[in-house]
Amino acid sequence: MSGNTFGHLFRVTTFGESHGPAIGCIVDGCPPGLALAESDIQVELDRRRPGTSRHVTQRQEPDQVEILSGVYQGRTTGTPISLLIRNQDARSKDYGNIAQTFRPGHADYTYWHKYGIRDPRGGGRSSARLTAPVVAAAAIARKWLAERYGTTIRGWMSQLGPIAIPFTDWKHVAENPFFAPDADIVPRLEQYMDELRRDGDSVGARIEVVAENVPVGLGAPLFDKLDADIAYAMMGINAVKGVEIGAGFASVAQRGSEHGDELTSEGFLSNHAGGVLGGISTGQPIRVSIAIKPTSSIRTPRQSIDVEGRSTQVETFGRHDPCVGIRATPIAEAMLALVLADHALRDRAQNAGVTVPTPRIAGPDPRR
Amino acid sequence: MSGNTFGHLFRVTTFGESHGPAIGCIVDGCPPGLALAESDIQVELDRRRPGTSRHVTQRQEPDQVEILSGVYQGRTTGTPISLLIRNQDARSKDYGNIAQTFRPGHADYTYWHKYGIRDPRGGGRSSARLTAPVVAAAAIARKWLAERYGTTIRGWMSQLGPIAIPFTDWKHVAENPFFAPDADIVPRLEQYMDELRRDGDSVGARIEVVAENVPVGLGAPLFDKLDADIAYAMMGINAVKGVEIGAGFASVAQRGSEHGDELTSEGFLSNHAGGVLGGISTGQPIRVSIAIKPTSSIRTPRQSIDVEGRSTQVETFGRHDPCVGIRATPIAEAMLALVLADHALRDRAQNAGVTVPTPRIAGPDPRR
Amino acid sequence: MSGNTFGHLFRVTTFGESHGPAIGCIVDGCPPGLALAESDIQVELDRRRPGTSRHVTQRQEPDQVEILSGVYQGRTTGTPISLLIRNQDARSKDYGNIAQTFRPGHADYTYWHKYGIRDPRGGGRSSARLTAPVVAAAAIARKWLAERYGTTIRGWMSQLGPIAIPFTDWKHVAENPFFAPDADIVPRLEQYMDELRRDGDSVGARIEVVAENVPVGLGAPLFDKLDADIAYAMMGINAVKGVEIGAGFASVAQRGSEHGDELTSEGFLSNHAGGVLGGISTGQPIRVSIAIKPTSSIRTPRQSIDVEGRSTQVETFGRHDPCVGIRATPIAEAMLALVLADHALRDRAQNAGVTVPTPRIAGPDPRR
Amino acid sequence: MSGNTFGHLFRVTTFGESHGPAIGCIVDGCPPGLALAESDIQVELDRRRPGTSRHVTQRQEPDQVEILSGVYQGRTTGTPISLLIRNQDARSKDYGNIAQTFRPGHADYTYWHKYGIRDPRGGGRSSARLTAPVVAAAAIARKWLAERYGTTIRGWMSQLGPIAIPFTDWKHVAENPFFAPDADIVPRLEQYMDELRRDGDSVGARIEVVAENVPVGLGAPLFDKLDADIAYAMMGINAVKGVEIGAGFASVAQRGSEHGDELTSEGFLSNHAGGVLGGISTGQPIRVSIAIKPTSSIRTPRQSIDVEGRSTQVETFGRHDPCVGIRATPIAEAMLALVLADHALRDRAQNAGVTVPTPRIAGPDPRR
Repeated sequence: MSGNTFGHLFRVTTFGESHGPAIGCIVDGCPPGLALAESDIQVELDRRRPGTSRHVTQRQEPDQVEILSGVYQGRTTGTPISLLIRNQDARSKDYGNIAQTFRPGHADYTYWHKYGIRDPRGGGRSSARLTAPVVAAAAIARKWLAERYGTTIRGWMSQLGPIAIPFTDWKHVAENPFFAPDADIVPRLEQYMDELRRDGDSVGARIEVVAENVPVGLGAPLFDKLDADIAYAMMGINAVKGVEIGAGFASVAQRGSEHGDELTSEGFLSNHAGGVLGGISTGQPIRVSIAIKPTSSIRTPRQSIDVEGRSTQVETFGRHDPCVGIRATPIAEAMLALVLADHALRDRAQNAGVTVPTPRIAGPDPRR
Repeated sequence: MSGNTFGHLFRVTTFGESHGPAIGCIVDGCPPGLALAESDIQVELDRRRPGTSRHVTQRQEPDQVEILSGVYQGRTTGTPISLLIRNQDARSKDYGNIAQTFRPGHADYTYWHKYGIRDPRGGGRSSARLTAPVVAAAAIARKWLAERYGTTIRGWMSQLGPIAIPFTDWKHVAENPFFAPDADIVPRLEQYMDELRRDGDSVGARIEVVAENVPVGLGAPLFDKLDADIAYAMMGINAVKGVEIGAGFASVAQRGSEHGDELTSEGFLSNHAGGVLGGISTGQPIRVSIAIKPTSSIRTPRQSIDVEGRSTQVETFGRHDPCVGIRATPIAEAMLALVLADHALRDRAQNAGVTVPTPRIAGPDPRR
Repeated sequence: MSGNTFGHLFRVTTFGESHGPAIGCIVDGCPPGLALAESDIQVELDRRRPGTSRHVTQRQEPDQVEILSGVYQGRTTGTPISLLIRNQDARSKDYGNIAQTFRPGHADYTYWHKYGIRDPRGGGRSSARLTAPVVAAAAIARKWLAERYGTTIRGWMSQLGPIAIPFTDWKHVAENPFFAPDADIVPRLEQYMDELRRDGDSVGARIEVVAENVPVGLGAPLFDKLDADIAYAMMGINAVKGVEIGAGFASVAQRGSEHGDELTSEGFLSNHAGGVLGGISTGQPIRVSIAIKPTSSIRTPRQSIDVEGRSTQVETFGRHDPCVGIRATPIAEAMLALVLADHALRDRAQNAGVTVPTPRIAGPDPRR
Repeated sequence: MSGNTFGHLFRVTTFGESHGPAIGCIVDGCPPGLALAESDIQVELDRRRPGTSRHVTQRQEPDQVEILSGVYQGRTTGTPISLLIRNQDARSKDYGNIAQTFRPGHADYTYWHKYGIRDPRGGGRSSARLTAPVVAAAAIARKWLAERYGTTIRGWMSQLGPIAIPFTDWKHVAENPFFAPDADIVPRLEQYMDELRRDGDSVGARIEVVAENVPVGLGAPLFDKLDADIAYAMMGINAVKGVEIGAGFASVAQRGSEHGDELTSEGFLSNHAGGVLGGISTGQPIRVSIAIKPTSSIRTPRQSIDVEGRSTQVETFGRHDPCVGIRATPIAEAMLALVLADHALRDRAQNAGVTVPTPRIAGPDPRR
């Protein structure tokens, strides 16, 4: 209710501020018996870690995760899994001037109005640093989904500011700091980022995520539609301003005879739906695209006000991602994993059924 | 949890199927003391009613609402408000051929897989008819928001298939069946729809919604961000495939120095944020844009399978909206109203505070 | 959150006031495929109906239930089941004097303070009449539990005011208006009630409920313990002031060597636990005992205040149960059924597991 | 949903096992601006700490709490407050024989059946040690309730096994390890416990809790009644088997003319209701009584089975509380505090009202 818990049955509650002693989360509802070690989580945290290229914040955080509960002899027990990550490289002096003014486009302003108090150090709770516990929790969800259904979740950057990035091959994604699925464009992206840094400015990005081997039947008909929950999850990522499922905004100009994915006894012939019909998964890949706005903390001086309401100029020093989208791919994957894990558990409950005597149809087995 | 309840504190649970005896909802959490009559609700239901122009389904439903509880001597009492709408013009024979086959792009397929059973008459629970109880519930939310904060919520159609619709004036919106804010374009829209109907096809649309006089401070920092909940609400509307807040996907190519809305002691100088920063309302207008896919029920024959998995051809007769987007404007407004009412109540709880001794800043009063 | 919804996965939201147009509920989360007719529900409503003996309120209500949704061709579809019961014998004139004063021991006082407004007719929402939708919803839960697990839930009155009622045989329970499991004591109970009515007074009662064939493993370890949720459900029944599970308050004076139920390979040797250990069901019968206070609406004049805070005398005329406990047995059964159905669905989600390679032990099969 | 979160708006999620690396919780929803230091929490943890007298477990745990988030410059910020307590004196060798057998009356059996896996060390998650995070979280709730409403919550032991303990004076409660409100009876209690320890047995207890200066109007009419939530909270404490509010089971034999608390313009004349009418607080003291069963881990040999279902004998060595009730008083106080804080926040949302033009009545101000 206070906005720090994600999910209903596979449920994650996070805590922490950018420059506090620690960040972390409690993962509740993970089924018992899943093999789990800290290394399973660390590998995902490392993908999202700051300080790994010159194009992202230079904050050096090992982001070492500690499992405090819920695992016994290498397996989950069905009890809450608590994950702890100590903050180490917190330099609050960099943020001193921020405490009394509001950065245009930043949560400073709204936190102050909502709570009447805020932790200004490094953005406090609104910092992108708080995506680390989410990525850690999702590492557990991903492992469970992979073992239970064979589900895989992968993402990439499809646009950096004005530069569209073609999809060439999955193999490139892990080989550059942008998560770009094309090797040839990387030098151009690097040059663009260098110019941006020189200008003291920031830029937006577009990220794509796809989940494969998703069981059919996840979701709910009216409000907790699978795509509605995906939209909620994605729009909840810092700086996201738009979400599309399948054909997305392109569907506005499509006709029904083009958009509606035809079926044969071998399966679907297209996937404009993006893997969801009527709020419920079809078994096809789930396709999501998100828009990320440019970082609000920039070195360029801007008009603003201070906490007394007086006009002032703000320019932000300190360490910031000039394009928060560069590190967003693992985060978007994480959010999709959390939605799918939660709906997979919900579907179990929704089908706790008296057997329905209906013939089976072709395609993925509906009774997982 | 089963996806039929919307909201946490201002909470709506709907029921009903397209061709069952009735549809309706329970609105729980509406504050006591609000003057409320059936006519307050009926006016909104009438805006969304089918059968009012030749461009939408010809089903004739008076959609007469009955308040069954929660109102005493013309005022809400704080107890649940139950709203009942009897179905009247249900012609299930029109849908007979649908029971054994799946329409491409339709929820038929996923309901069957999820539940092993479905009510095929008129789309059952997945019918757009089920937006009526939502609109009815939201009429209460809108009335409360208007009285409490002066909040107004309005929408319009900005694109019909390939035709972009300019915003000329609010006054036109109510004067044509498309909710188009421009009078001159209406004949072109009508001609387009007539052609589409002749072709037995359908098309998508884009709808805009804006909320004004929204109090500052609604939302939550991590997961229940106001924009995340708006995305969830909008993507939950039948046929929606994309959601944008403020600059939306345009923010991908924006620079931080352009996107971040500057502030003076008189207020904000722009609204790329769309009224939300860090997941919390700024007090500026909230701006939302959604993409609606073309209706999946069309007369054009299409490849599909039957419930035994055999290949077949499907064409849909019966009464359908050839562009479900035409009637979507009041629904999008309704969903936004429900999100705002819920967050307004949540904010009350989140600020039940020990007084914080901080100076007040300019702008809307944060302590509602 | 507003207190009108019960359960998480098997979820019931009720509405209505004693003298409004109707009462009813939405049952959400009932698994699909369950055979269900109005008669399945009516039979339980009839057990709890007023006006059936001279010892309970003389209000004549047929309590005819109508299923408005969620059932297609005689089977549940997994969508919300809406139940409607029209109020018929509402005589609001009987309650006229109540609107301006508070009855000692009645919710009048607190509703007024909480909401600043209330529907005084027949107790409004606080009326025992509102247990009808709960009983109706629970009829569905009971049917599902019976078909899925063979679970049966039965209750009886064990004490009426000062008179302890021995348990002789289940067969007597249905044969007298008190739900007394002993035929010989019935004349004494009737005489006691006649005296009470002559005195214009009311009295309390104790009710026992037992659930048999409950699957092992329902519940949760810390807060949503099965017994905690039972206590919540029972204390939520109008007029209940105490709840015991198993040995209850007698366990205060027991020693561990007496209380702890020993096990053999054939099962448990006793059931002081009442079927719950560590918040999770053992597979033994669940035993619950509740205390019901005397009805607060009595003809005896009592000191009170009016809505202006002035001292006054209150005596209640109109139709009231002189012992609300007499009709409480089906209600207590209903609440237990709702808790069990909800936890049965929750358990499905909690065990959506990677298979655990452990040997099976004797007793009920833990993997339902 | 998995049973590790308590509350809706003032919400506590706990984690940890008896012998894992740490225990703790996240407190979400605490209003911003509350002065809070670790010492505020430590004082309550110290009241519940083990090893402080010879009558309780000899495990030596400093239970030092660390605040990891949610507090900035000594004040809460409205973001989640994470509390961490490292386990220090975990001797798992003491529990080796327990892993393969089930203790009569212990959660061993049900955990094994539910999850197919369990952490047997020290009872794992079912250990009474897990009440420490609850007490820590409640320390925050208590501080907020005290500052906001002046609410105080106090408890005492009223019965130890067969020995009833008279209430003489509050001052004695803190002066003996039993929380007994009478000094003279303490030697008798000590002697009884010494005999019990010699016998290798355990015993039950009864605890009373009272909350004063509770605002009128907390609660909800149907299911989330304040007393229902209190019953849920209390029955959720390890080993509790019964809960009473106000007159409790005594109300069975009371008449309405005795039980219903009369009112004058100066207030109530009695408090059989225990501070709750119709599920909503009256402003009178809330009175709760609970029954705690004898500890299941005893040295006396008992019949049981092992994980293969074979008959065996079990006797428990290691460190255990021979009467878990001795340390239960601070825990019962804690649970009551959590319920009240949650309902206080809920009430804020429930009254976010259009002003109701009704005359004010005498008594506590209903509009907090």
